[in-house]
Amino acid sequence: MEINNIDVRNYPGSTKTYVEGKLHDIRVPMRRIDLTPTVKIINGEKMMHENAPVYVYDTSGVYTDPDVTIDINKGLPRTREKWISQRNDLEQLPGITSEYGRQREADKSLDSIRFANRYAPRRAKKGCAITQMALAKQGIITPEMEYVAIRENMNNEKLGIKSHITPEFVRDEIAAGRAVLPANINHPESEPMIIGSKFLVKLNTNIGNSALSSGIEEEVNKAVWSCYWGGDTLMDLSTGDNIHETREWIIRNCPVPMGTVPVYQALEKVNGNVKDLTWEIYRDTLIEQAEQGVDYFTIHAGVLRAHADLIGERLTGIVSRGGSIMTQWATLHDSENFLYTHFEEICEILAQYDVAVSLGDGMRPGSIHDANDRSQFLELDVLGQLTEIAWRHNVQVLIEGPGHVPMNKIKENMERQMSACHKAPFYTLGPLTTDIAPGYDHITSAIGAAQIAWLGTAMICYVTPKEHLALPNLEDVRNGVITYKIAAHAADLAKGHPGAQVRDNAMSKARYDFRWKDQFNLSLDPARARQYYVESHKDDDHFCTMCGPNFCAMRISQAVADNCAK
Amino acid sequence: MEINNIDVRNYPGSTKTYVEGKLHDIRVPMRRIDLTPTVKIINGEKMMHENAPVYVYDTSGVYTDPDVTIDINKGLPRTREKWISQRNDLEQLPGITSEYGRQREADKSLDSIRFANRYAPRRAKKGCAITQMALAKQGIITPEMEYVAIRENMNNEKLGIKSHITPEFVRDEIAAGRAVLPANINHPESEPMIIGSKFLVKLNTNIGNSALSSGIEEEVNKAVWSCYWGGDTLMDLSTGDNIHETREWIIRNCPVPMGTVPVYQALEKVNGNVKDLTWEIYRDTLIEQAEQGVDYFTIHAGVLRAHADLIGERLTGIVSRGGSIMTQWATLHDSENFLYTHFEEICEILAQYDVAVSLGDGMRPGSIHDANDRSQFLELDVLGQLTEIAWRHNVQVLIEGPGHVPMNKIKENMERQMSACHKAPFYTLGPLTTDIAPGYDHITSAIGAAQIAWLGTAMICYVTPKEHLALPNLEDVRNGVITYKIAAHAADLAKGHPGAQVRDNAMSKARYDFRWKDQFNLSLDPARARQYYVESHKDDDHFCTMCGPNFCAMRISQAVADNCAK
Repeated sequence: MEINNIDVRNYPGSTKTYVEGKLHDIRVPMRRIDLTPTVKIINGEKMMHENAPVYVYDTSGVYTDPDVTIDINKGLPRTREKWISQRNDLEQLPGITSEYGRQREADKSLDSIRFANRYAPRRAKKGCAITQMALAKQGIITPEMEYVAIRENMNNEKLGIKSHITPEFVRDEIAAGRAVLPANINHPESEPMIIGSKFLVKLNTNIGNSALSSGIEEEVNKAVWSCYWGGDTLMDLSTGDNIHETREWIIRNCPVPMGTVPVYQALEKVNGNVKDLTWEIYRDTLIEQAEQGVDYFTIHAGVLRAHADLIGERLTGIVSRGGSIMTQWATLHDSENFLYTHFEEICEILAQYDVAVSLGDGMRPGSIHDANDRSQFLELDVLGQLTEIAWRHNVQVLIEGPGHVPMNKIKENMERQMSACHKAPFYTLGPLTTDIAPGYDHITSAIGAAQIAWLGTAMICYVTPKEHLALPNLEDVRNGVITYKIAAHAADLAKGHPGAQVRDNAMSKARYDFRWKDQFNLSLDPARARQYYVESHKDDDHFCTMCGPNFCAMRISQAVADNCAK
Repeated sequence: MEINNIDVRNYPGSTKTYVEGKLHDIRVPMRRIDLTPTVKIINGEKMMHENAPVYVYDTSGVYTDPDVTIDINKGLPRTREKWISQRNDLEQLPGITSEYGRQREADKSLDSIRFANRYAPRRAKKGCAITQMALAKQGIITPEMEYVAIRENMNNEKLGIKSHITPEFVRDEIAAGRAVLPANINHPESEPMIIGSKFLVKLNTNIGNSALSSGIEEEVNKAVWSCYWGGDTLMDLSTGDNIHETREWIIRNCPVPMGTVPVYQALEKVNGNVKDLTWEIYRDTLIEQAEQGVDYFTIHAGVLRAHADLIGERLTGIVSRGGSIMTQWATLHDSENFLYTHFEEICEILAQYDVAVSLGDGMRPGSIHDANDRSQFLELDVLGQLTEIAWRHNVQVLIEGPGHVPMNKIKENMERQMSACHKAPFYTLGPLTTDIAPGYDHITSAIGAAQIAWLGTAMICYVTPKEHLALPNLEDVRNGVITYKIAAHAADLAKGHPGAQVRDNAMSKARYDFRWKDQFNLSLDPARARQYYVESHKDDDHFCTMCGPNFCAMRISQAVADNCAK
């Protein structure tokens, strides 16, 4: 099987640049947007001044680096390979450990869809605590930590902007569990990033096929474009056929950390029969996926048998797939959720590969009616206990959050999460602030996401316009990602993140100067901004169609200002 | 000139219903959404229960009443005519008062674009205080007041939901200036509605051509569709040719209150030459428009000469068209803004027709950088003084607000407005919570609009995806209106408006029951929800493409609940 190359080009007016590390031999990518000078005619004289370039956070990987040849069939350059191979706490395995992985490997019928360029996995040497959290606790600043410190600051020190984010600060936040740096040692293609409330707000995108739709090529396409548009992490939520092979294609071409919900694949392995799920199958799935390079697992270990009885109080029951599966399993077997009872063993596995755990909120509310109810908060308390267990194993922890929540109940979610889960980073799906707008749920949820991110949520999971209706296509992914970039950035501004406003100021100055191309280039989606504009303009109009030539407020305002300046 | 009829059909699954008044002979329109029953198979037995219909606020006018024949060339039925004609505080004028209006009337060359079915205007009898505010202060409950009281409650008393909104409450809020009921006596086609922080949050849409675009038919089309999708009021911001004639077409076919910014037309009358603007031309424009039936005027009377000097502190100067015009006028003439100096006379004119004043925020920030600055808040204090003047004349007052404001500065806007402007209703444009997303500014601003509406803003002015780039087309109007319905409704939920959650609950129950058609019919944009769904479904699937057949959380959750219930 060969996949066509993906035609991602760099953003217009932009140059891929790299900032080098001081502690480590690392190169941190950024996008530099070059701006045109401001030109004014005052009293018949042409005045000009330069506008400094703007550096922006760049999640697009080497897809936008003209010096790198992209070949989807070979995978991305393995940037972290050198750092990882120099570590002496890891061992190279002879081959795949998981039983299922070996079966798939041996199955010749899968050759036609298999990603060819595979690598043998690594694992922690026995007795070695190898996670970023373990290293941070030992006082070590890893290359990954320095990388994210540089990345977060977007070169703003050049503008004299002071930042609290240093490599030491990154290390301390990770050590304390307040930030997560997802970095599976088997995903060296990933460019390090950090998730924590004192860093830029991050956004996750979900892709993945279901039994009804979407093939490997389409999913890889969505993955790459999602990074291009600004996704910070990516979850593959595939539930259809060939999950194992699809995932390999995505991971090898994915420049951002990738997450999964392993129970989805475990359930496929028992043909969708919840009752047949076992800890052994699940365990093998964890190892299979960890060795492929999945950076974080959503695990619904906080859904307890006792909570099933509370569903009756709800309007929409359980809307988390993982949560409903584990609740049904527990009910059918009349025993406790095996993810809860085996949580220590889960942590032992995750710690060997530095896979982070994202504690799933199986009881997240699926309607305004169910927001902030007993089931939801009882589970949150359990997630807090599990957090402590994971941390003892040096496993990095994210806490997943709702869901559907009206604006007046958002703050309570954040406050309870902070206190119940010991400040582990919160990672929410929206929340959607009303139930009545299917087709527009990227918007109902961005309203909630912006607010909860401002209050401290570290990562927001995007929602596309197709939520509740269908799986997203590529254009839906674009709308979802850009909408969530807006929510995340609005939160960064509200939180006063150092340098967050640089881009807004540059945009606004470009507006005031009628530098249209700079406006496009500075915008989150230059292609769309440009398209809307050119449909009704000549390129150098010193007014826009909104006001027409006689009514441009900014043109008149400049005339007034120029007059005052005389 | 003949305009084609507009093909607005009623919403699917919906019936236009009317609730009759108790105090007055009035019929208040609502949309009733009928739902299908819930069907369940439990232990092989088919269980069914009915779902009560949901009544929703309906802004679409008689366009969705199958019993009314629509003819755009004749205009809408004049619903309020009877109430108005029975009043003895009004006089019927022999013809148009304004000089400009008479000139246009006499100009035969305009016959080809003129709306044919015109009426002579009414005006207050000398010495009569005729506005809704004046009547409220006298303790009178007008038909309009009873109408909005019924309308706000959406028939929810049938569900046992208690509401604070009674005709008396409406009257008292209007008397105190905390709510505005825009109801020009010359716009009897308008269905009464109310704007105030203790009522449902309202949304305004802007339409209007500029010199570069858009003809009469297109604008009438946008107006009608904007009401269909949920716009509560409509501003005609035309700045191109034939503003007078365009406006007549729109008002006669507009079932919601309409606003304008009269200085735009006044400026057209002096060929765009700001220096040539005079109080006399402006005054004549007010009378011209008041007699056509404009329900509220945006008047930038708070932009003072002294404030012009503060522009230098800003990144984006003045972005309000009206504000920039008046500032330039004041600077060129080195004298005070004539809207400020003539404000008492303005109020005298407005009071004769019950035109409300919307005090424009000429100094609203046009960038994150300029939010909450001196210019903005100095003007707000002036607006507070003007509010008191207007109220002395019994003129109803709205206060316009920003603009571009980061989330952390939104609350200060609301608090200052409340205290500076004596609780007159706040009416904001967005605010946009970041500058960097042209092409998506309906979203950047809905994030801010939802928040400020929750905090007490009574009406939010929509922003379309084309903001900053071009004038909206019909599809942009749709996206803008639905996005703002979401923001308004999210705020109603957060404020706990009586009955606001009825529709959300019905939607969520329909979701849990897999009643797909009911989901479409209950949604803010049934056509879009349905379209997204049918692209990938058979209609009666008991799962959706998101999860596929084995993974539907709600299906599993129901199985668990059914099991527990045994």
